[in-house]
Amino acid sequence: MQADLILADVEAIRAKSPLVHNITNYVVMNTTANALLAIGASPVMAHSIEEVEDMVGIAGAIGGALVINIGTLSEKWIAAMDKAMRAANEKNVPIVFDPVGAGATPYRTDTCKQLLGSHRPSIIRGNASEVMALLNSDVTTKGVDSSATTDAALETAKLVADTYGCVVSVSGETDIITDGEKIIRVAQGHALMTRVTGLGCTASAITGAFAAVNKDTLAAAAHAMAVMGICGEIAAKKSAGPGTLQLHFYDALHNLDLSGVSEHLRA
Amino acid sequence: MQADLILADVEAIRAKSPLVHNITNYVVMNTTANALLAIGASPVMAHSIEEVEDMVGIAGAIGGALVINIGTLSEKWIAAMDKAMRAANEKNVPIVFDPVGAGATPYRTDTCKQLLGSHRPSIIRGNASEVMALLNSDVTTKGVDSSATTDAALETAKLVADTYGCVVSVSGETDIITDGEKIIRVAQGHALMTRVTGLGCTASAITGAFAAVNKDTLAAAAHAMAVMGICGEIAAKKSAGPGTLQLHFYDALHNLDLSGVSEHLRA
Amino acid sequence: MQADLILADVEAIRAKSPLVHNITNYVVMNTTANALLAIGASPVMAHSIEEVEDMVGIAGAIGGALVINIGTLSEKWIAAMDKAMRAANEKNVPIVFDPVGAGATPYRTDTCKQLLGSHRPSIIRGNASEVMALLNSDVTTKGVDSSATTDAALETAKLVADTYGCVVSVSGETDIITDGEKIIRVAQGHALMTRVTGLGCTASAITGAFAAVNKDTLAAAAHAMAVMGICGEIAAKKSAGPGTLQLHFYDALHNLDLSGVSEHLRA
Repeated sequence: MQADLILADVEAIRAKSPLVHNITNYVVMNTTANALLAIGASPVMAHSIEEVEDMVGIAGAIGGALVINIGTLSEKWIAAMDKAMRAANEKNVPIVFDPVGAGATPYRTDTCKQLLGSHRPSIIRGNASEVMALLNSDVTTKGVDSSATTDAALETAKLVADTYGCVVSVSGETDIITDGEKIIRVAQGHALMTRVTGLGCTASAITGAFAAVNKDTLAAAAHAMAVMGICGEIAAKKSAGPGTLQLHFYDALHNLDLSGVSEHLRA
Repeated sequence: MQADLILADVEAIRAKSPLVHNITNYVVMNTTANALLAIGASPVMAHSIEEVEDMVGIAGAIGGALVINIGTLSEKWIAAMDKAMRAANEKNVPIVFDPVGAGATPYRTDTCKQLLGSHRPSIIRGNASEVMALLNSDVTTKGVDSSATTDAALETAKLVADTYGCVVSVSGETDIITDGEKIIRVAQGHALMTRVTGLGCTASAITGAFAAVNKDTLAAAAHAMAVMGICGEIAAKKSAGPGTLQLHFYDALHNLDLSGVSEHLRA
Repeated sequence: MQADLILADVEAIRAKSPLVHNITNYVVMNTTANALLAIGASPVMAHSIEEVEDMVGIAGAIGGALVINIGTLSEKWIAAMDKAMRAANEKNVPIVFDPVGAGATPYRTDTCKQLLGSHRPSIIRGNASEVMALLNSDVTTKGVDSSATTDAALETAKLVADTYGCVVSVSGETDIITDGEKIIRVAQGHALMTRVTGLGCTASAITGAFAAVNKDTLAAAAHAMAVMGICGEIAAKKSAGPGTLQLHFYDALHNLDLSGVSEHLRA
């Protein structure tokens, strides 16, 4: 990856302020909205079946993306996700899908397979256990943590990309982004980020902003993960723990410039 | 506006700790509760149709306000809002209504018109596009942003105030507060505030606290917007971005005194 | 209480990272998840009736706790709480129950009595007014504040412990923790903590983490309250108001060590 191409996407987000329509979980609604605002996007949270189609329509008309996150699932939300994903496919609005906790309960795993089987996502973003669960493997995840090895994660990511015809972005100590053939590795971030709730969900939301401005979906997904990790590193330097990290992370998203990306980007 | 009258309301909030009953959106429940606590009010979030009438009753008995915010709407919530607003009108509890995203989807616009047509709010607080949408104009809002000019906003605010028989508080670079005749302009605030999610919703919640202690509804609405803007300015001085701004903003609400108001208040 | 025993529980949480399954209110989902992560536990928020039994099963299999918090109640959530509590009792997963706002509306009070009458909690944690309301007394609470005196709180706590056969943890200026016979008092904390939303709910969530690693339920509940108060004191020293307090509080949970506990622990 090149620092200037990463920052070009960030600048495009700031210039176009794409509408990122999130149907996401209760835990992270506020924090992902803040991350999207900090980087320059326009977040909308709307989950009612009466309006998701209209909201996706706005995203289609003015440029945007749909982010589906199953973190706190229930029946009415699934119906709204289904309707929103259908509309997004019809209007060519890119979909980022986050299978939070897939593998932890059959309800989550089954819901993901049903939604991904009926509609075409642009990017699936999750940790290794969650992504594995999309393949009928017998991995058991402990909540939303990842226990898979990097090698297994890579093979699984490729299989999932092939199965659903999309880019797969697997977060971990080294993130793996693949379209089934090409592979990009992102080795950014800081251990303290795992002690802040919803930074994985934030990665998915931010990925939506990048997908809205960069038609090269693989690059968009990789750039998003690089920015997440770099801003986490910048924030960690100023932080005494996970509480202060979260705020400095938003500040870092807001202030990120080329020298910041260049300074922190690893090969 | 006079600094001492603004602070008198703040002191009244701290002394009486009015109950502010919010039926609000998922994104801002935590942050608006924190803002209300920081300024000295007693926030309650309760949306179940089984209890909203009782909760409004407590607000009526001990002094308080009802804040209705349609940010993340669904059918059951609308029914609860309807019931709560009816109870508030019966018990003379002031209602602050925030039409979040009105104009963005028909669902939002129609819901606002239905609720405002059936009940009498004390104050409608939104951005110019949202307030315009309450008038059957053909404005299209992009999510929750405002695109209207100040002049158009003023004319619309007056019309909405006349239509619904209430004070209208329109936020923007210069806030406009009017009862249809008198007009108060508030030119406070900081650009960084637009990069924090839910500060508009927070303005509505804080307006509820002021409406609970000051029967002059126009003054209450204006004082609330002045305090929002002033605390945003105080916070911005200490902040490197939107993340740190949000926290310093709560601290500023908590610590606001007469010299802080006087120092920052513009004509 | 002894500082080393308190820290031993903290170290056990960090080592075992127990799964704390929360069915909690919208206002605090993010903040309680952050507090649990900061202290080293693995939070899961899941409320759908389709999966709560499975999630409790994971908590039972790998060690964990169930936290039930009625802060933003509605019918479907009550059904899920009922099912989750039944599963927890069957699998010997400790339940922490937080009767937020009990006494404020009949809906809250009745729901608490129904759930606590059908299932066996390990620990009930609330403020004095909420705990009193579980006894059919005629206390009226103003939202989620406490107005009861310490003496009345102690007698009530004992009665509630006897009635429901569990430990009762009553927060206040001095916290009272009792199993109906033994009494532990915790006099930690800082006034600024009452100006941050959901720190009571956070105490319940943290109590869940302690109950997951310490089978002495009375000690677990008391250690949790001591850690809450001590971390609040540590955070308050660095904070200019409630906004910054909340973040320094997470940092304090993350960094707490024996010297920190020893230095702040009162008799």
